Amino acid sequence: MAVYTEVPDDDLAAFLAEYGVGALLSCKGIAEGVQNSNFLIHADAGFYILTLYEKGTVESGLPFFLGLMEHLSARGVTCPLPVRNREGQSLGRLAGRPAALVTFLDGMSVKRPDAKHCAAVGEALATLHRASEGFGLRQENALSVAGWSRLFQDTQARADGVLPGLALTLASELAHVQQHWPHDLPRGIIHADLFPDNVFFLSGKLSGLIDFYFACEDFYAYDLAICLNAWCFEADSSFNITKGMALIGGYQRVRALEAAEIECLPLLARGAALRFLLTRLIDWLDTPEGAFVKKKDPGEYLKKLRFHQQAGGASDYGLMT
Amino acid sequence: MAVYTEVPDDDLAAFLAEYGVGALLSCKGIAEGVQNSNFLIHADAGFYILTLYEKGTVESGLPFFLGLMEHLSARGVTCPLPVRNREGQSLGRLAGRPAALVTFLDGMSVKRPDAKHCAAVGEALATLHRASEGFGLRQENALSVAGWSRLFQDTQARADGVLPGLALTLASELAHVQQHWPHDLPRGIIHADLFPDNVFFLSGKLSGLIDFYFACEDFYAYDLAICLNAWCFEADSSFNITKGMALIGGYQRVRALEAAEIECLPLLARGAALRFLLTRLIDWLDTPEGAFVKKKDPGEYLKKLRFHQQAGGASDYGLMT
Repeated sequence: MAVYTEVPDDDLAAFLAEYGVGALLSCKGIAEGVQNSNFLIHADAGFYILTLYEKGTVESGLPFFLGLMEHLSARGVTCPLPVRNREGQSLGRLAGRPAALVTFLDGMSVKRPDAKHCAAVGEALATLHRASEGFGLRQENALSVAGWSRLFQDTQARADGVLPGLALTLASELAHVQQHWPHDLPRGIIHADLFPDNVFFLSGKLSGLIDFYFACEDFYAYDLAICLNAWCFEADSSFNITKGMALIGGYQRVRALEAAEIECLPLLARGAALRFLLTRLIDWLDTPEGAFVKKKDPGEYLKKLRFHQQAGGASDYGLMT
Repeated sequence: MAVYTEVPDDDLAAFLAEYGVGALLSCKGIAEGVQNSNFLIHADAGFYILTLYEKGTVESGLPFFLGLMEHLSARGVTCPLPVRNREGQSLGRLAGRPAALVTFLDGMSVKRPDAKHCAAVGEALATLHRASEGFGLRQENALSVAGWSRLFQDTQARADGVLPGLALTLASELAHVQQHWPHDLPRGIIHADLFPDNVFFLSGKLSGLIDFYFACEDFYAYDLAICLNAWCFEADSSFNITKGMALIGGYQRVRALEAAEIECLPLLARGAALRFLLTRLIDWLDTPEGAFVKKKDPGEYLKKLRFHQQAGGASDYGLMT
């Protein structure tokens, strides 16, 4: 859950006035996303999600992410559509932060996906790969092999404190993927984070995709490998082959995997697991105790009490007698 | 911000089916309220707030709070209206907790109230006092003098660790209000927590009141004293007499204070400040470090990695060759 920034009322109203959505009727912080502040906005023209991009967001990537959502929307992929302001920009500034307004998308993520969900996700992933063709902006994958190496260096000394032996495991795994990582698989724009949280369903049918903030250029089959990690394991971390089948089958109904991609799939899946292991390790180590907790200062009411203690009568509160 | 409970999808759908609001289209945890879990629900019939009452809620009080909102709504006070289910009940159960669905209310709370806001709140408070007359259910104020005494006993030994000298201050203040607290002022149902968070405005006009979970029977003028504390102090804790005037003036435009109420106002305001000082002290002392933070277990991805390390080929992922 994430609301890191309080937005002054006047600033919010002024911001929205630029987007032609009419008067602001309601604004509620929502418990969605990890890195940014998200608000559900009701305005005359409908419901929207307002995102404030917090520290940690590389601002230069935002035109890519927002432009991609627009590109995909125009090609029939159901995803949030960024609203452009009067200057034709989808990226604005609010409360000192980059900010964007996107359309509200109905649908709910599934907490316990079954094989049918996996099949639908496979199809949607391949559809996204096809639909992203022709998008003009570029974005490298900062979390591919070189990025993993940096993450490992940051955590190496502390990893064993989280899980004994972890540092050595990471070192050897990293060496392996560095040595074997392919260079010439089919590539293009991938979602790179298509976890169950980021896929909406309505009445059992996939209804939309959200959170494109890890999207980048990389191997299509690596995106599929991420989904294998994200969708096809049970709660006890055993792999459910029925779900894996459904996912890959769904993918191939839209885009057939090439022989080289099929060959590399186990390696790509190792890489994907290493990537999420490393970023979760970082989060585990770097999330401060007490994050998100806003304690209210009791001293505030002690000071108010002091005022009342010295008050001579109701007239001290402005009562006109 | 508060979402303490994850609701299983099927349970949520089954719960809503009882309320005649059509199919569930969206459910988002919202950062509102402190004690309970709140979700913004979109269903065929519109937008709603779903509240799960968490530990700490005295369940026996819920029919009073929900009934009061219904009573006030019917008398023209704009507040969330509880939706009754097919059995005619507004109180249900979901995820093992008492739960209620109320209508979504447009409007925004003000972060920096001015005198006009204070005047509007004074009017709304008196209107609420008038409109609550005739409501049939009863609810004692658990946070009046006797309750403060219990809170003090719970915190006495630890208070000085928060602010040096606080225990002695609390003891003497408590003795004072215990000795002088009135017994015979005009009384009825009060909101008891009408802070800026709980008052919505639209285009500068008061548009609704929320959060009736501290409502109870007590002196009307005590409710006004709570609002003086909540609305009429500046950020530096100095009292703004212009705002106090506006608040009391607004109140009296709807309900004239009696002489005895006017007499008691300073004492009531002391009591109100003591009440919030004590509850904030409790919250400060009892909120665990790291509350609300859900750390993700990196061990999960270590186990997934182990699977990939032993995978023999794409067929281990279900790829049919």
